[in-house]
Amino acid sequence: MTPDPLNRLVAQLAKLPGIGEKTAQRLAFHILRAPSEYAVDLSLAIREVKEKVHLCARCFSLTDTELCGFCRDSRRDERVLCVVETFADLMALERTREFKGRYHVLHGVLSPLEGIGPDQLRIRELLERLGDSKVEEIILATNPDVEGEATSLYLMRLLKPLGLRVSRIAQGLPMGGDLEYADQATLAKALSARREL
Amino acid sequence: MTPDPLNRLVAQLAKLPGIGEKTAQRLAFHILRAPSEYAVDLSLAIREVKEKVHLCARCFSLTDTELCGFCRDSRRDERVLCVVETFADLMALERTREFKGRYHVLHGVLSPLEGIGPDQLRIRELLERLGDSKVEEIILATNPDVEGEATSLYLMRLLKPLGLRVSRIAQGLPMGGDLEYADQATLAKALSARREL
Repeated sequence: MTPDPLNRLVAQLAKLPGIGEKTAQRLAFHILRAPSEYAVDLSLAIREVKEKVHLCARCFSLTDTELCGFCRDSRRDERVLCVVETFADLMALERTREFKGRYHVLHGVLSPLEGIGPDQLRIRELLERLGDSKVEEIILATNPDVEGEATSLYLMRLLKPLGLRVSRIAQGLPMGGDLEYADQATLAKALSARREL
Repeated sequence: MTPDPLNRLVAQLAKLPGIGEKTAQRLAFHILRAPSEYAVDLSLAIREVKEKVHLCARCFSLTDTELCGFCRDSRRDERVLCVVETFADLMALERTREFKGRYHVLHGVLSPLEGIGPDQLRIRELLERLGDSKVEEIILATNPDVEGEATSLYLMRLLKPLGLRVSRIAQGLPMGGDLEYADQATLAKALSARREL
C-alpha cells in the first residue's frame, strides 16, 4: 500500500552497511520531508562520487585527479612510504598529523580463506613503484590482526632484500587503556615490546 | 586531501538523521566500492521519491497517485476512520493487519511551545472530509505522550458534538511487559483502564 517510489528508496537504502529496514525507512521519510534541494544534492553527490573518484595511479589512494594530493604535494617526504590496507586507514593516519611521508594503499590483506593472495593486492605496483624512487623506509601499517600481521610479514620478507629499512607500527596498550582490562595478546605484546627509558 | 566529490558525499550523508561523520564516511566508501548500477539506482530512487511521492488529497498519507491505496480500496470500511500523527504510525498500524478502515494523517501534534496549533495540522481537512462521509467511528491513534494526549483530547471535543463515536487506542502494559519494570504512569493507566472479564 505504500507508494512504489518510497518502497524502492527504502530497498536501496537498506542495502547500505549497518542500515536495516527500519533505519532505511526513517532515512527515506527524512529525505521526503527535507527540501527538494537536499534530495537533488544528495542524489548528485552519489553519482559524482562514482563518476569522478578513482584510484591514484601511483599510490592507489582515492582521487579525482590523475595523481592524488599526497603524491602531488612536493612538501611530503618521498623517502618514507607508509603501506596501509584501505583508504580509511590512510585517513585515520592523516588525522594524527604525525606522518608527512607518502602512502601506498594495498586495498585489502592477504587472506587465503577468501582467496586473496598477493596478486589481488597492489603489491606488484608497490614493487614497481620502488624501482626508481627515493624511498628509504617503508612503514607497514596494516591492522594488528591475523591477516594484517601476515601481510606485513609477507611484505617485510619481500622488501628487506631490496636494502630498504622496513618498520612496523607499534603494538601495545592503547592510550588511556587499563592493564586490568587489556586482553592477553595486547598485554603480552606491550611487555615484549617494552622500551628502555 | 581527500577528493572533493567524496567530501561532498560525506557531507550530504552526514545530514541524515542518526548518521554521524564516521558513519557517513563508511557509507560513502561502500557506495564507492559498490557496482555503478547501485549508485545510479540509489541516486534515482532519491530523486524519484521527491518528484513522485506526495500527500493523498483525501487522507494525507503518502502516495504517487492522486488518492492513496487506502482511499481507493473499496474493500476498506468507510465507517471507521483512524487518525494518526504520521505516515510511519499509519504503517505501524497496517503491520498489525487488524485495522481495515480508513486513515487520516495529521502530520504532527499540537505543540504550543513549537508553535504548532490546530491550523498547522490537517484538522480542518479532517472536518471537511467528515461533512459528506459515511464515517461513524473515529479512532484517535496519536502517541500516548503529552502532545499526543492533548491532540486526542482536542479532537475528541471537536468531534463528539458531531454525533460521532470517538475512541482512543488503549494504554496499558505492553505485551511481554513486566510489572516490576513498568513505569508508574503506564502501570497506573493499566490499573485504571482495567477490563472486567
